[in-house]
Amino acid sequence: MKRREFLHSAGLGLAVGSVAMPAIAQSNPEIRWRLTSAFPKSLDTLFGVSESFAKRISEATDGRWQIQAFGAGEIVGTFQAFDAIANGTVEMGHTSAYYYLGKDPTFAAITSLPFGPNARQLTAWQYQGGGNELCNEYLGKFNVYAIPAGNTGAQMGGWFRKEIKTVADLQGLKFRIAGLAGEILQKLGVVPQQIAGGEVYPALERGTIDAAEWVGPYDDEKLGLYKVAPFYYYPGWWEGGPSTHLMFNAAKWNELPKRYQAIAQDAAMYGNTEMLAKYDARNPAALRRLVAAGAQLRPFSQEIMDACFKLSNELYDDISSRNPDFKKIWDSLRAFRNESYLWLQVAEFNYDSFLIRSRGRG
Amino acid sequence: MKRREFLHSAGLGLAVGSVAMPAIAQSNPEIRWRLTSAFPKSLDTLFGVSESFAKRISEATDGRWQIQAFGAGEIVGTFQAFDAIANGTVEMGHTSAYYYLGKDPTFAAITSLPFGPNARQLTAWQYQGGGNELCNEYLGKFNVYAIPAGNTGAQMGGWFRKEIKTVADLQGLKFRIAGLAGEILQKLGVVPQQIAGGEVYPALERGTIDAAEWVGPYDDEKLGLYKVAPFYYYPGWWEGGPSTHLMFNAAKWNELPKRYQAIAQDAAMYGNTEMLAKYDARNPAALRRLVAAGAQLRPFSQEIMDACFKLSNELYDDISSRNPDFKKIWDSLRAFRNESYLWLQVAEFNYDSFLIRSRGRG
Repeated sequence: MKRREFLHSAGLGLAVGSVAMPAIAQSNPEIRWRLTSAFPKSLDTLFGVSESFAKRISEATDGRWQIQAFGAGEIVGTFQAFDAIANGTVEMGHTSAYYYLGKDPTFAAITSLPFGPNARQLTAWQYQGGGNELCNEYLGKFNVYAIPAGNTGAQMGGWFRKEIKTVADLQGLKFRIAGLAGEILQKLGVVPQQIAGGEVYPALERGTIDAAEWVGPYDDEKLGLYKVAPFYYYPGWWEGGPSTHLMFNAAKWNELPKRYQAIAQDAAMYGNTEMLAKYDARNPAALRRLVAAGAQLRPFSQEIMDACFKLSNELYDDISSRNPDFKKIWDSLRAFRNESYLWLQVAEFNYDSFLIRSRGRG
Repeated sequence: MKRREFLHSAGLGLAVGSVAMPAIAQSNPEIRWRLTSAFPKSLDTLFGVSESFAKRISEATDGRWQIQAFGAGEIVGTFQAFDAIANGTVEMGHTSAYYYLGKDPTFAAITSLPFGPNARQLTAWQYQGGGNELCNEYLGKFNVYAIPAGNTGAQMGGWFRKEIKTVADLQGLKFRIAGLAGEILQKLGVVPQQIAGGEVYPALERGTIDAAEWVGPYDDEKLGLYKVAPFYYYPGWWEGGPSTHLMFNAAKWNELPKRYQAIAQDAAMYGNTEMLAKYDARNPAALRRLVAAGAQLRPFSQEIMDACFKLSNELYDDISSRNPDFKKIWDSLRAFRNESYLWLQVAEFNYDSFLIRSRGRG
């Protein structure tokens, strides 16, 4: 065989013969994964991230990578999702890292810390401030790789049966609130309560608890709490812009072809922006309906905000003194937040202020 | 041949035989495209959207879809980019629709209108408020399909040689500013100037012009205008959250396999969020450097803001009375902005306000 013929045949073989298939198979394998969401299907904006991700991955791979999304409790519950991902029970999930802060408060720093960056700042920190790298350096210890996927924006401070004007009014208040905010409020006399979502309404109605926080207007409306606890406080200073994440079993992630990893990064970013956009589009009408139904909006007083801010900083100093993982992430988050507000307070904040003052005039 | 054997053979044929190849070729074709950016390579955050998109598309298609990104002037200039996309000189580009408002003011509404939605609101409008559909319904007339890809956030109001405190101070002011903001300011006595970026510095130095607007701290710093016009005004009320777009020749877009379209949507969203994150991460330090070098920050007075807001609304009413395309998009934008601030003024704005007041305390 002449050299030219040999090359031609060999080329043809590579193009259509059996030798070619492994290369195609490698970069375009058929994969079927299960995703456990920490959120119930009833929270359509939060569960929607999983559905949207699965759909986009399927479209971008011509259906070769299929992901089936399960709601909280279908495979494992909300608080078991992280372990199920870490130990490979499922290949991936969608959850909030702060659900697992019982393991280590560093998990809270990955989602949102009281008085942390707002949604836009957190996204900038994650993608341009080294945040994703810091979070994955930490989560790698658990065999988990995470990509931000969905932010709610600043949340509300919850529903209260009575008005709360001063720090003294917090004394003995039975408040359904979890995590670090619960710890902070406890120092001001609040008695934090842990109650599942479905039991919040009857507990408030009977007066077993005095207050409960959930998310913001769109999700809160579904629980109907305005009927039994009409004072709707803001802002939810413990969740100024919390980030949910798509989390992957790291070994499974590392086995993916580079192409699938690139597709997943982009589809996750789509979900990240889409979830905030959904909240931004749906919260205004929900707020209107809530106020029309009797909800009474109230800001937390400067006294309460100041006391909680001071205690938050003390708590972070305390945790940082014994926990280098937490310290590393919080130091980075705090520096980024403070620098960011230096700039946002100029053009962005004044633009918003003017348009808020001018509502109704244009 | 037994039925089982026939099915097996047929299946094998579909998997590895020549019958299979057209299907693979169709969904995974080799494509080489040229992209013209309306931005020069020196504006790294803006030009970066094109580079990032090309890289992500290549990664997600294993290099089968290759896009070469050209800076402004390499194929066509900034103001020719839209026509080059529309007539198929290039398959796609990255630009700001408002560069083409000479064709029709509707183009301005696609990017940003004075006192329009902020960056987060515009994203929500585009993806969850029907904005992308409205914009593409209009751009389809020109054989162009657009996907949002990059927002600068609220811009600055520009560099002034003298302080401007009242509407009277605007009389006869030679201000480098284009588009609808120029029209609005003209009604207050400003003389709008059109000067290319590179000529702004000498014009300000010689006093040929009195003021010039550009983008925000990170991009403005490169022009060095603080040396010749130290008063740095905010906010740039004409660009509260302008959106740049990746634009595609519609025929070329429609020829793409569905899979490539899905990949492009996700990669564009990545670029959309990444550009704002880059500005958010880089503007604070640039602002610090500018102020250290002598820039003096000044807010536009309430009198000036009010006068410009009133004139903007009058201008939009006037254009809407004769231009149904503009009216359709502006009516939708305005309603979305007003509803959105109803909600953002509650939790989000109070959260930001508190943290801005508390800077330096934590």
